[in-house]
Amino acid sequence: MAEPWSPPPSFAQLDHDRTARRGYPEAVYCAGKTSDQVRAIAAELRERADAATLFTRADPEHARAVLTELPNALHAADAGLLAWPPEPPPTSGGLVAVLAAGTSDLPVAREAELTARYLGRPCELAVDVGVAGLHRVLNRLDLLRSAHAIVVAAGMDGALASVVAGLVSAPVVAVPTSVGYGAAFGGLAPLLSMLNACAPGVAVVNIDNGYGAGHMAAQIAANR
Amino acid sequence: MAEPWSPPPSFAQLDHDRTARRGYPEAVYCAGKTSDQVRAIAAELRERADAATLFTRADPEHARAVLTELPNALHAADAGLLAWPPEPPPTSGGLVAVLAAGTSDLPVAREAELTARYLGRPCELAVDVGVAGLHRVLNRLDLLRSAHAIVVAAGMDGALASVVAGLVSAPVVAVPTSVGYGAAFGGLAPLLSMLNACAPGVAVVNIDNGYGAGHMAAQIAANR
Amino acid sequence: MAEPWSPPPSFAQLDHDRTARRGYPEAVYCAGKTSDQVRAIAAELRERADAATLFTRADPEHARAVLTELPNALHAADAGLLAWPPEPPPTSGGLVAVLAAGTSDLPVAREAELTARYLGRPCELAVDVGVAGLHRVLNRLDLLRSAHAIVVAAGMDGALASVVAGLVSAPVVAVPTSVGYGAAFGGLAPLLSMLNACAPGVAVVNIDNGYGAGHMAAQIAANR
Amino acid sequence: MAEPWSPPPSFAQLDHDRTARRGYPEAVYCAGKTSDQVRAIAAELRERADAATLFTRADPEHARAVLTELPNALHAADAGLLAWPPEPPPTSGGLVAVLAAGTSDLPVAREAELTARYLGRPCELAVDVGVAGLHRVLNRLDLLRSAHAIVVAAGMDGALASVVAGLVSAPVVAVPTSVGYGAAFGGLAPLLSMLNACAPGVAVVNIDNGYGAGHMAAQIAANR
Amino acid sequence: MAEPWSPPPSFAQLDHDRTARRGYPEAVYCAGKTSDQVRAIAAELRERADAATLFTRADPEHARAVLTELPNALHAADAGLLAWPPEPPPTSGGLVAVLAAGTSDLPVAREAELTARYLGRPCELAVDVGVAGLHRVLNRLDLLRSAHAIVVAAGMDGALASVVAGLVSAPVVAVPTSVGYGAAFGGLAPLLSMLNACAPGVAVVNIDNGYGAGHMAAQIAANR
Amino acid sequence: MAEPWSPPPSFAQLDHDRTARRGYPEAVYCAGKTSDQVRAIAAELRERADAATLFTRADPEHARAVLTELPNALHAADAGLLAWPPEPPPTSGGLVAVLAAGTSDLPVAREAELTARYLGRPCELAVDVGVAGLHRVLNRLDLLRSAHAIVVAAGMDGALASVVAGLVSAPVVAVPTSVGYGAAFGGLAPLLSMLNACAPGVAVVNIDNGYGAGHMAAQIAANR
Amino acid sequence: MAEPWSPPPSFAQLDHDRTARRGYPEAVYCAGKTSDQVRAIAAELRERADAATLFTRADPEHARAVLTELPNALHAADAGLLAWPPEPPPTSGGLVAVLAAGTSDLPVAREAELTARYLGRPCELAVDVGVAGLHRVLNRLDLLRSAHAIVVAAGMDGALASVVAGLVSAPVVAVPTSVGYGAAFGGLAPLLSMLNACAPGVAVVNIDNGYGAGHMAAQIAANR
Amino acid sequence: MAEPWSPPPSFAQLDHDRTARRGYPEAVYCAGKTSDQVRAIAAELRERADAATLFTRADPEHARAVLTELPNALHAADAGLLAWPPEPPPTSGGLVAVLAAGTSDLPVAREAELTARYLGRPCELAVDVGVAGLHRVLNRLDLLRSAHAIVVAAGMDGALASVVAGLVSAPVVAVPTSVGYGAAFGGLAPLLSMLNACAPGVAVVNIDNGYGAGHMAAQIAANR
Repeated sequence: MAEPWSPPPSFAQLDHDRTARRGYPEAVYCAGKTSDQVRAIAAELRERADAATLFTRADPEHARAVLTELPNALHAADAGLLAWPPEPPPTSGGLVAVLAAGTSDLPVAREAELTARYLGRPCELAVDVGVAGLHRVLNRLDLLRSAHAIVVAAGMDGALASVVAGLVSAPVVAVPTSVGYGAAFGGLAPLLSMLNACAPGVAVVNIDNGYGAGHMAAQIAANR
Repeated sequence: MAEPWSPPPSFAQLDHDRTARRGYPEAVYCAGKTSDQVRAIAAELRERADAATLFTRADPEHARAVLTELPNALHAADAGLLAWPPEPPPTSGGLVAVLAAGTSDLPVAREAELTARYLGRPCELAVDVGVAGLHRVLNRLDLLRSAHAIVVAAGMDGALASVVAGLVSAPVVAVPTSVGYGAAFGGLAPLLSMLNACAPGVAVVNIDNGYGAGHMAAQIAANR
Repeated sequence: MAEPWSPPPSFAQLDHDRTARRGYPEAVYCAGKTSDQVRAIAAELRERADAATLFTRADPEHARAVLTELPNALHAADAGLLAWPPEPPPTSGGLVAVLAAGTSDLPVAREAELTARYLGRPCELAVDVGVAGLHRVLNRLDLLRSAHAIVVAAGMDGALASVVAGLVSAPVVAVPTSVGYGAAFGGLAPLLSMLNACAPGVAVVNIDNGYGAGHMAAQIAANR
Repeated sequence: MAEPWSPPPSFAQLDHDRTARRGYPEAVYCAGKTSDQVRAIAAELRERADAATLFTRADPEHARAVLTELPNALHAADAGLLAWPPEPPPTSGGLVAVLAAGTSDLPVAREAELTARYLGRPCELAVDVGVAGLHRVLNRLDLLRSAHAIVVAAGMDGALASVVAGLVSAPVVAVPTSVGYGAAFGGLAPLLSMLNACAPGVAVVNIDNGYGAGHMAAQIAANR
Repeated sequence: MAEPWSPPPSFAQLDHDRTARRGYPEAVYCAGKTSDQVRAIAAELRERADAATLFTRADPEHARAVLTELPNALHAADAGLLAWPPEPPPTSGGLVAVLAAGTSDLPVAREAELTARYLGRPCELAVDVGVAGLHRVLNRLDLLRSAHAIVVAAGMDGALASVVAGLVSAPVVAVPTSVGYGAAFGGLAPLLSMLNACAPGVAVVNIDNGYGAGHMAAQIAANR
Repeated sequence: MAEPWSPPPSFAQLDHDRTARRGYPEAVYCAGKTSDQVRAIAAELRERADAATLFTRADPEHARAVLTELPNALHAADAGLLAWPPEPPPTSGGLVAVLAAGTSDLPVAREAELTARYLGRPCELAVDVGVAGLHRVLNRLDLLRSAHAIVVAAGMDGALASVVAGLVSAPVVAVPTSVGYGAAFGGLAPLLSMLNACAPGVAVVNIDNGYGAGHMAAQIAANR
Repeated sequence: MAEPWSPPPSFAQLDHDRTARRGYPEAVYCAGKTSDQVRAIAAELRERADAATLFTRADPEHARAVLTELPNALHAADAGLLAWPPEPPPTSGGLVAVLAAGTSDLPVAREAELTARYLGRPCELAVDVGVAGLHRVLNRLDLLRSAHAIVVAAGMDGALASVVAGLVSAPVVAVPTSVGYGAAFGGLAPLLSMLNACAPGVAVVNIDNGYGAGHMAAQIAANR
Repeated sequence: MAEPWSPPPSFAQLDHDRTARRGYPEAVYCAGKTSDQVRAIAAELRERADAATLFTRADPEHARAVLTELPNALHAADAGLLAWPPEPPPTSGGLVAVLAAGTSDLPVAREAELTARYLGRPCELAVDVGVAGLHRVLNRLDLLRSAHAIVVAAGMDGALASVVAGLVSAPVVAVPTSVGYGAAFGGLAPLLSMLNACAPGVAVVNIDNGYGAGHMAAQIAANR
């Protein structure tokens, strides 16, 4: 029944090519893993010279597990993120601007910022620039217009994505957050709002997915 | 089994009180009715001296049915609305400003405008003021700030409601429209966005419900 | 890439204008913030003479953080709200009536009542007036008809909004609550019910958003 | 593989028992069937002496197909229903009251009324008794209180079910209709509202399912 | 603005009429109430001679609060229900059969059973009669066919409601439960399934609403 | 930027292997294609000796396009399916039983039956075996127990899948249909019901996807 | 009213037939049961010689309850599963391959693997074969092609099911997991993705339902 | 009430700056507009020398309206798009690769391709590269790896986005299409799948929004 078939060399090579080309760190998504599983992965990293890795969605217990094996790893508790090695690579490519509509969106924005930074981009974070006070976002026009890629983290109405995209020529990576009252439905409201942004130049990642937003922005702003 | 019970006079009186007090026209929602049913209602109106009435959601066939009985009725085909008698009442109360984010939102905005006008308010309509070009809405700040109530009709991201509410002190009645691509889900996206407006002072009516928005705004701007 | 652009003075002025005009307190939404962040905001307020502020969605820990810095702040634990300064402004404008369909809707109704009061309106609260016993709401007709704006807080079927709107000429601000059995889906049932109110004169705010409802009602009942 | 097994006689008997016991007509749901399929069923009926049958959800083409074979069948075009034989059985059991909140709910209410009548119950229909004008439903209290089962057909907010259940001791069978603006979502709003009725004594059938409501009400009001 | 209006005597009388006629106990929905609120209600009951009352959705803390004031109240912990006075009324009317598809549906079924019993009906409960083993439900045909009203509590596919309704002539009150794996979505799957029951004679109450199901069944089986 | 990379021979070979191994026909999903596109595909087939192909979801215009190029193709209009070459392969493997709960489910069931037959399985179709009359499905136990795979096509409550799975040891492939009243929500109700089948041995394909169901069943019943 | 009817012997026999034929263990779904209920079931098993049983969705407390009565039962804590008797039956039938897209999908995959093994199939589990690195799944082609049935457990995009089905001729049983960020909506995303698999040969079980997937796969791979 | 306020010059300037900087064409979304409105816009364009404009979602009637005024405009009927002036600008920036999973996704993919081309990017389109046959997409690795931005248009399971993102370092703009059977729910299935892509480097635009995808990709691949 089973026919003989060996994976062609090109496949193994495929992945190697990709890692080498990108120079991007691997990511370990901790949320669905036990502390023991996370610790085992961290222990493996200690043995390898060149393995840049981000641990995302790490709760305090996950963090302890990583730090047991990699005591010098960077730990950004507010973003639920650990990075190994702790020093980010030298910056290259264009500026990534990260905007948090409100203070409650900060953890997601920080995850995006750190991810982009550990992929090698220069980053700048601006907080509390929601559209309820337009002057706040308009005050940051110089930042917005100097960026090659912009991450907008916003919950509730998610309106900041449309407003920002209307002001700049750089692509906007919108990340809806689960911040808000009942009918925000855990981020569904800003997700739909951002998908329906009335200004072109907006694309959307998953709810609360700061890692994905930062990664996408870093790819956009890479030198090619 | 059934106990004897006569409706107390106060009930019949109840409704009479209300109509007299409001001086607001009745509304006939045509969408679920046959042309014959609509025509019969129009015929009854002809007999009554004082019955101000709006026919909403009237398709061309509904309109013909009304105009057969009430040839002088006002017919605003773009808003799917007919009014009897054709002359609106004299204006009283504060200004109602009606904003349509884009041209596609115009039918709903017009329904709101005409409703508010037939309830007696002075009205002004501004079109194509979506947030993708902030200068467009900011150019209408004088209008917005002179209004006692503001209707915002917007589809897609519905972001205009938040932006406007952040600029004025008058209450904003937001009406989501079913305009937009797939994930607008027939108006669900702007509905949720408006319910989650990050600026206070926004309340929401049903999708495409220009009549409800205009009615609410007229009540808000009434002299009391 | 980034063009030179300075935020025009009119923007900074914009916000100042708005605050001055409204005389409305700022609101700090505590739900997504750490106690430390909330405390820092409270500490800033202590330094400012004129900053009226409401802390909404404050859990006991948030409350402790505020009271550490502002020991005299009003704390309404049932509504999850703190107010600074503790004295509400003198009343002006029309009466805001707040209705809670059942006892379980009381926290949301109280948040609405206090918000409207701290925005300067006279308020009156009526509880346990659900439509399962019509006489209860009909017994409050005098209250309802003396109000310039009415807040209706109801979960389950949300039917109270329609019934009240059919009895009065004042605008009704409906706030669905997350009270109820399974298919209430966390407030979705009364939200949809209120958006589809068969009587005109109803507009809706977010689920459990007593603050938003009270704010909207206070704006409607303001003297203009 | 297949073990020998003969359906025991008790099964065939099962169905016969049931039909005999109920004396209720069969129902043919036309919506998913071709005209030819419907016509073939009608032709079969012509051959059988005792087969009382309702054709539900019959569009004009379905109706023509039935009437070709059974020219004397009753055809209630407004309810999309045909009945064979055309005469309903003599009435027995208690009164079924059927309420339509508005004119647009009439087709569903009529389907319920006719179904209950063809199952043998005395019926009475009341239209335009929505809660936006409470006096209208209160004017029919005598009808409501003389009924053994009450069908409430309502779209939009579906609030009539709660109000009626609060006024009577008979069970209420609520049938949501797909009447309404956008966020009625094809009847979802009244469906959820009725499932969350704040008065006990309400149970719900499918959206627009007048047949199901009338059937259930007839069963409730049967003499047992 | 507010016209003088006194609640007509008929309203107060309305409620009294209703309570007297029904002889049904009041219900206190504990889920949204604090223990103090529940205890206060219990204390009031102690003062009244004739107030039959059910406390539903009572968690252990709610139960303690009730029992502090009414130590002799019946407490059915498995159903989250307390009854005062503890003795149910003498039975009258027809039999109410309550079916639980599986053991996990038992709490809801028990709530239904006790409610119907405290409204005065004779009741019988059958457990573990899910359709995965048809012989289990067919073994209870004698019970099903002797009942005047049948409550079916089922989660997952909710298929039991259709199967039972196809076997009997009594009305079936279906109560979906929140039992099941992921795509049961908290009871949505059986709710929709039951609303779409392919056999007529099924009406549905809210998810996990054993109280509502038992109440409806008791009304159906009442002597009239 | 782009590195040189040639698709390794193993890939092209991959697909060839697969087609050869399966001996299953290709399928052309017509629904999203123009008649011209479908005709062009049919024309290509004419040139190839060995290309067994099914055209699924073919409306009358699609069918005409195919038959223009392949006049001898089998056309099953009721199932929206065309097959080329017209003769199915000789049967092999176990029996596939296909059940349609009602007449309205027949098009989907027929699509499943024909697909399984054109993949080489012996098939038998049973119609009108819904659970509202249990004797109907129990009368087909011999068929069910002789099958190696069973397809159950049902709309509304989808309960037939659970009932059948409880009676047999063969795997059940359940295909929900979009048949039913409003709250069937285009097949969502039976989809969820089937995913939550209380009997093990049920797996589900997409709504109305008779092709997918027949294909899966044919794979299950294949000789291996 | 109730007609005399005795359950025919064939029914009792029905179930016995089925158990005997299948030789499959019973399953006790622990999630909705108390520890006491689970313990009582375990105690009953101790008395019976031949009762193979799986306890699924057993949390640590459930497990303790089972092990108190059946100390030798197998307990796979990672899969929330206990088996009695502890030794699986001798293997028969074809190979069941179980794939977990990522480490977080492992508990569900393990539940599937153990279920299939306790139904008598030989099993092999492959982890971390998600499509983000195609070489990982392509490296397992020999496993995939030697299997008679394949279980694919995947969260997030659920894309692995389509990719695998495109590579093999065996049927794929897809089980979506609740792993992932916000818009995975508790497994809804992979559920819909798998139902829409672009390759034929995929059928889907409930979210996180490893037991159902393993059972279905074991039935497919059984010798018949 | 309304304070004097003039829009500051900087706003008007804002928009001018933006248009000048981007050199991107304006877009007219035809779907919600009448033919007369579209024609009026086209007529205005005729008067302006430099106004590059795309008309998107143009049905045949919209197209006729545009061509009446601008007979030389490019009309791509398959993409529902017209462009004025007809010649795209000279290419600049990196390559945009556009992938259509199947033929049915072609209209959306073409809209993306043409949009990117009219924004000035070189483009290449590859069709029929769905993951059901991995060799098809792997055969296009050279194209994928030479692109600066990749648009993936796919319906059904949307799995192509994850697979492509795992093979390249360029950002992937995913556009779900409304192609597919019932539980695709008009594009919801691929939308959720793409938002949950298991490979980083994917961001998503609205369902069927080829224009938005092409615009975003063109911005990403621009020279900066």
